[in-house]
Amino acid sequence: MQLTSTGLKFPDPGAPLSTVGFADAVLRGFGQVMLQNNSYTGLLFLLGIAYNLPVLALAALLGTATSTAAALLLGVDRTLVRDGLFGFNGALAAIALLVFLQPTPLAWACVLIAAARSTIAMAALSEFSKVWSMPALTAPFVLVSWCFFLATARLGRLIPTGVLPAANLPKAAAVEGIVNASTVIDGLFNGVAQVFFQESAVTGVLFLLGLFLSSRLAGVAALTGSFTGLLIAWGMGASETSIHAGLFGFNSVLVAIALGCVFFAPGRVTTAYTFLALIATPVVTSAISAAAQPFGLPGLTLPFVVVTWLFLWAAPAFSQLRKEGTS
Amino acid sequence: MQLTSTGLKFPDPGAPLSTVGFADAVLRGFGQVMLQNNSYTGLLFLLGIAYNLPVLALAALLGTATSTAAALLLGVDRTLVRDGLFGFNGALAAIALLVFLQPTPLAWACVLIAAARSTIAMAALSEFSKVWSMPALTAPFVLVSWCFFLATARLGRLIPTGVLPAANLPKAAAVEGIVNASTVIDGLFNGVAQVFFQESAVTGVLFLLGLFLSSRLAGVAALTGSFTGLLIAWGMGASETSIHAGLFGFNSVLVAIALGCVFFAPGRVTTAYTFLALIATPVVTSAISAAAQPFGLPGLTLPFVVVTWLFLWAAPAFSQLRKEGTS
Amino acid sequence: MQLTSTGLKFPDPGAPLSTVGFADAVLRGFGQVMLQNNSYTGLLFLLGIAYNLPVLALAALLGTATSTAAALLLGVDRTLVRDGLFGFNGALAAIALLVFLQPTPLAWACVLIAAARSTIAMAALSEFSKVWSMPALTAPFVLVSWCFFLATARLGRLIPTGVLPAANLPKAAAVEGIVNASTVIDGLFNGVAQVFFQESAVTGVLFLLGLFLSSRLAGVAALTGSFTGLLIAWGMGASETSIHAGLFGFNSVLVAIALGCVFFAPGRVTTAYTFLALIATPVVTSAISAAAQPFGLPGLTLPFVVVTWLFLWAAPAFSQLRKEGTS
Repeated sequence: MQLTSTGLKFPDPGAPLSTVGFADAVLRGFGQVMLQNNSYTGLLFLLGIAYNLPVLALAALLGTATSTAAALLLGVDRTLVRDGLFGFNGALAAIALLVFLQPTPLAWACVLIAAARSTIAMAALSEFSKVWSMPALTAPFVLVSWCFFLATARLGRLIPTGVLPAANLPKAAAVEGIVNASTVIDGLFNGVAQVFFQESAVTGVLFLLGLFLSSRLAGVAALTGSFTGLLIAWGMGASETSIHAGLFGFNSVLVAIALGCVFFAPGRVTTAYTFLALIATPVVTSAISAAAQPFGLPGLTLPFVVVTWLFLWAAPAFSQLRKEGTS
Repeated sequence: MQLTSTGLKFPDPGAPLSTVGFADAVLRGFGQVMLQNNSYTGLLFLLGIAYNLPVLALAALLGTATSTAAALLLGVDRTLVRDGLFGFNGALAAIALLVFLQPTPLAWACVLIAAARSTIAMAALSEFSKVWSMPALTAPFVLVSWCFFLATARLGRLIPTGVLPAANLPKAAAVEGIVNASTVIDGLFNGVAQVFFQESAVTGVLFLLGLFLSSRLAGVAALTGSFTGLLIAWGMGASETSIHAGLFGFNSVLVAIALGCVFFAPGRVTTAYTFLALIATPVVTSAISAAAQPFGLPGLTLPFVVVTWLFLWAAPAFSQLRKEGTS
Repeated sequence: MQLTSTGLKFPDPGAPLSTVGFADAVLRGFGQVMLQNNSYTGLLFLLGIAYNLPVLALAALLGTATSTAAALLLGVDRTLVRDGLFGFNGALAAIALLVFLQPTPLAWACVLIAAARSTIAMAALSEFSKVWSMPALTAPFVLVSWCFFLATARLGRLIPTGVLPAANLPKAAAVEGIVNASTVIDGLFNGVAQVFFQESAVTGVLFLLGLFLSSRLAGVAALTGSFTGLLIAWGMGASETSIHAGLFGFNSVLVAIALGCVFFAPGRVTTAYTFLALIATPVVTSAISAAAQPFGLPGLTLPFVVVTWLFLWAAPAFSQLRKEGTS
């Protein structure tokens, strides 16, 4: 093995993983949450979470390790595991479970179960979408987390925190609060931090550092995504608190990275196409958030998954676009 | 180019579109709402809307032109664009947005965005369902419109009209109102008019004229669909107001045209199979309407899409049926 | 034809069905509800229902016969029909309709319509999932039954019974009731009986007899499934009444049979994989039950379908598992 600019590189990626190789795969798992196959980037993401809430960093580490280990035990292709592709859904599921459920011993056990289950869901969704060469993105995480959140309505020992929205019928919104400079600045960085469900501008800056380390284009895309998400949401009358918290940022951040510099070859047409998707994202984010309301569910990163799938599925019909390999 | 009984015909359908060719494609887009590739039929549909609400005809024209233009700009296969296949979802999205949202300048901007997005959704769904050679039907329109309607719960500047149902929990219906001759006659023609979300018997008659112009069988199918929808809904205890307004007609109209004279070769078995589908449609229409209620959404043409997909997907298993090419 | 240990066997399975052959196919349809291609097993299932509620046994017989006959009339491959694969969804739909709807003449007519429609839905879902060689399982039954239950909110002559849950917003559960020996014993057998929506320990025992007759492994799997479902639900704080009624058993019973002894070759890895699925099932059962609550719908056997699909779809990624032919 050899140290490269993206972490460890192995002469035979199909060989069994050493302890160091496993750690590298886990860190790449963190990086893959923003579609970066880079263990240094993953380390900065982990630090960003630890800065805000150390216990969540621990849970995320546990989740990523569990889902990665489950993939190895079940015999998943090792090159995929090495690239962190069986880690990122476990990372997100672990964080989400401890953000939205009270940290009882049962909840910690569920973190392990959810992480392992995210490996099954990742394999299942990958097989399903293989027909179209579509990536599963963070859909496995959303499915698995939603199961546990919904189950709180039947299983009395799974206890939601106050952050889990109560089930409610959606009704027409009014324009609430006044957007000022602090809304825009905090919203911009919170928007990046919320990719891991953190609300902290410093965490957002650490995440951006990680992105720039891996790819300057990815860093610019993330900032652009967060900014357009915020701007369009503001223009269409979203509440100031949601803009300030970055809730209209994180899905746009992910869409911008995925379409702008991962799945298509960078260029003018790709940029234009990505902007089309970024215009759609705040409306889709609002729609999914409202649709999830009668179930008492948060939208998580489903808006990113839906918009990205839609624009990837549509691409073959558009002769102007050229698709690159998927990460 | 040459004038034929269905509109313009081009020697080289892959060549760039002239202004006249574009107008022909837009009118065919109107025709394709009822699966008719015929620009005269499209013109009659446009007149039918204009008779009832001129501003909606304008919006529909704008929507169809936008989605058609977007398809051309993105490089979609020009033969598909010429046939109006990238117009009909834009037409419906434009109308639905201005029926269910208040006509602010933002709503008009959303008409353009929704129409363009329907082109992306059409390309995406077509690619998805290509695996089974299934048509996307009006699913792109439903998806895009629902996004905007749901988003009204988060974006305060998107304001619903009184026509958008308030989110509510569905509960067991009682039999309401008394069906008389006027219910049946108005319901029959309103059922056809509601394909474009119009409630006007005259509009329904104009639409039927357009259909008969294109295909006598399509006209008969539309009338049969509207009538069976009304009859079964009545027999199963639907409210008089909904029957009178044609709300149990339009999905049945579309199912009858699609299965009875577009996707299968006409004949006795096709007719029997179409009737099976028409018996199912009022129940599916009710089910989707009730399922959409907690979200405050109208069912739109989703019942048509679901029933038609189901009966098209099932067809290969039934040796008695022969499938024709799709329109 | 010849009498074998699973019922009748025909020299030419593609030949037209005699009356006796039809009866054999109907009984196999009952057996296929628990994935057993065995007409004696089917007969014991029928007796189990008749012991508890004779009128439901009659309805189930009618439903299975109707969906089997519809398949024959439409020209479905006769070997599939003989194996009961076009009967089991009709059986379940017939029972569910008369459990959740009041037995008016219209409801009985709907039993016939729903059974015939389950044949269309079975053909459609089979064609859809053929791409991945996935079985449709009981998804056709769930789709068709849900349509009728939802439609009660629009069609006043379809009248729900008190068993159909009222539409409600899900909210966090408390731990309710005290689990004792009778909860566990009744819950264990009710869990098997609930596969056909029966709450009777004797019925559960008759079903188990049917299973053991067909395959000892299937019987053991069913008992294990019911027991783990009950145990995990109890540990996570499900209400005593739901555990006692077997509501956490039946989906686990089906998952255990499907994964443990039908779709994978029995062995240590298969057993471990099945246990992973059984750990997931009570959470998924709770989640689907809560998600169905705003619509006033019961979860039926959807949890079984979702868990089984997930674990079947994931299987190709796991080199440790070998897939068998599907039943």
